[in-house]
Amino acid sequence: MKNKTKKIYLDHAATTPVDKEVLKTMQPYFSENFGNASTLYSFGKEAKDSLDKSRKTIAKTIGARANEIIFTSGGTESDNLALKGIAFANRDKGNHIITSKIEHKAIINTCKWLEKQGFKITYLNVDKTGLINPQDLEKAITNKTILVSIMHANNEVGTIQPIAEIGKICRKHKVYFHTDAVQSFCKIPINVGKMNISLLSASSHKIYGPKGVGMLYINRKVIIDPILHGGNHEYGMRSGTENVAGIVGFAKASELANKRIKIESERQTKLRDKLIKEISKIKNSHLNGHPTQRLPNNINFWFKGVEGEALLFRLNEKGICASTQSACSSHELKPSHVLTAIGLTAEQSHGSLRFTLGKNTTEQDINYVIKLLPKIINSLRRISPF
Amino acid sequence: MKNKTKKIYLDHAATTPVDKEVLKTMQPYFSENFGNASTLYSFGKEAKDSLDKSRKTIAKTIGARANEIIFTSGGTESDNLALKGIAFANRDKGNHIITSKIEHKAIINTCKWLEKQGFKITYLNVDKTGLINPQDLEKAITNKTILVSIMHANNEVGTIQPIAEIGKICRKHKVYFHTDAVQSFCKIPINVGKMNISLLSASSHKIYGPKGVGMLYINRKVIIDPILHGGNHEYGMRSGTENVAGIVGFAKASELANKRIKIESERQTKLRDKLIKEISKIKNSHLNGHPTQRLPNNINFWFKGVEGEALLFRLNEKGICASTQSACSSHELKPSHVLTAIGLTAEQSHGSLRFTLGKNTTEQDINYVIKLLPKIINSLRRISPF
Repeated sequence: MKNKTKKIYLDHAATTPVDKEVLKTMQPYFSENFGNASTLYSFGKEAKDSLDKSRKTIAKTIGARANEIIFTSGGTESDNLALKGIAFANRDKGNHIITSKIEHKAIINTCKWLEKQGFKITYLNVDKTGLINPQDLEKAITNKTILVSIMHANNEVGTIQPIAEIGKICRKHKVYFHTDAVQSFCKIPINVGKMNISLLSASSHKIYGPKGVGMLYINRKVIIDPILHGGNHEYGMRSGTENVAGIVGFAKASELANKRIKIESERQTKLRDKLIKEISKIKNSHLNGHPTQRLPNNINFWFKGVEGEALLFRLNEKGICASTQSACSSHELKPSHVLTAIGLTAEQSHGSLRFTLGKNTTEQDINYVIKLLPKIINSLRRISPF
Repeated sequence: MKNKTKKIYLDHAATTPVDKEVLKTMQPYFSENFGNASTLYSFGKEAKDSLDKSRKTIAKTIGARANEIIFTSGGTESDNLALKGIAFANRDKGNHIITSKIEHKAIINTCKWLEKQGFKITYLNVDKTGLINPQDLEKAITNKTILVSIMHANNEVGTIQPIAEIGKICRKHKVYFHTDAVQSFCKIPINVGKMNISLLSASSHKIYGPKGVGMLYINRKVIIDPILHGGNHEYGMRSGTENVAGIVGFAKASELANKRIKIESERQTKLRDKLIKEISKIKNSHLNGHPTQRLPNNINFWFKGVEGEALLFRLNEKGICASTQSACSSHELKPSHVLTAIGLTAEQSHGSLRFTLGKNTTEQDINYVIKLLPKIINSLRRISPF
């Protein structure tokens, strides 16, 4: 960083720095063990072995088998593969997909595209805390339904869906269940078997791994088509020379995160709750999302009479990185579709701010925010036209 | 590498090691400048600036504008984006695509998938040297043709197509022209304007950049749909958090390679021709591909009465990495579709071997191969059932 002010990064839902140990693990795969995993000679075999090991490591974190993990270029590709792959492969069985109104854009915009291809999409409502109603889901299932895609935890407001319950319903009705777990993977426990998950998307750069890598868990019984065609890498499910360094890094990151999943989620939950408690003391501030059923690292508030972006820039001046909505939508002027779905007006949505904690976030950092935030809000409210 | 024998890597068409200078350029983007390029605060801006700079660097190498470069996860995704993107966006204009029989699997298998979606594909024949006939191409164009996709240089036999001539024909008939330049990018000169190229695929890991990154040049006038939907990154053409470290590395690699494009291609051509001359002296050996219109680094031969894989393993024992066909097809038992298209029988195809040189290949390496190869072939022929 060029400027010398204090730097407190509280936007871990957008991305995370690569862990030093992860980077160290990746290093030999750039210039030394650089072989193409698909070649036949010994040099390629080393790359192949590293891929196999990475697959096992990642599978273990969610109770899957190694050959059920397909490496992709990230969460967006995983989501696209899950939805389009299932849609195209199961068109003869039905053309109906159920999702929710608060999914990530990678799901929402893929669904919109599928609508143009003749698929019918049900976008389930959520309540004021961001939860879908499992009964609504069950009612929406028809004999044309081929897939339910409900995210595990929301990227903006942190609400955690009742995944196991949703899985049970899908199993009962013999419908595939995909969950976008980009924000929850290695942060809260996941077991694909116990939760009846058929497909699960995860991303490396949200858990201190490198950008440009992700994975899709595909239960071995699932019938699905690839979306990238070519040399039939990844069991024919994802063509393209494997990004070995990236994959090895992703696996290391998942191993490290999973090892400390309990300790870290408890630690962050405490910091989260402290921050929520203190921010709640600010007049006309309202917590977005669920009070308890939320990600250990997510804090999202709206402040009456405050412009979120102005708040963001004032915090930035003081070295605090937060966000107004998801990073993927930050250049749009429309109010967040997630905040709209939980009932916020455009004004309330534009007055919202998200902090997402990380493993290096300290109590001192939180105290700094607690000290600064009320002052900045007061000063912004004094100049507010509202 | 675990074994201590000499190591001569002659499979640069499969992949290359990351250049030390490239890796150095990438390093700060993993754990320090790790910001999400789509966020609003200063931290994200640094990432965005690095992306913009990379886009300019890469655009410059092919005479394009920065905003015509779309970063992808690699050559395969670029090819899929070009073909499917054009097909879906221009369906109302026509459903006919022209390609060749010797394209990379990322093109061939994408075309096969498009056939299932109702598109008609013409797969042009090539002559014995691997060249398509531009007259055949022109004859194949109908008023339903929306795209011609012909690779610049073949990955197996190295034959370079008359791209400028093809571009001229496409321009005359107002048909988009895509070229898979994965093997030629930064190895032989390309100018998208002069060559009338509408779309061009390239990959980072073939030019000493990291794996998991590639790009698609899309001329600003081209009408195309994305294939990965989500947060509308890359001008809406490719969603997914940008792999900043990878992209910065790709740009550096292209800069370094482009700077030495003339010197290096001349140097490798000399080594190539020496190797071709010497291998030709082996009885019943035949050069695959074009004698002169071929990549500076490609040597491909078939040897009568020799099993290519046996040859590969024997060379591997002596520390020489070569390949039998493209890395992407190396686990298949079918004869190479490229070698079949240039007229080889299954037996001839299975008796073929490819060497691809790189910037670190020395004359000494070539001499070592020249010394060893005839001996290995003789010994294999003695035990051959043919």
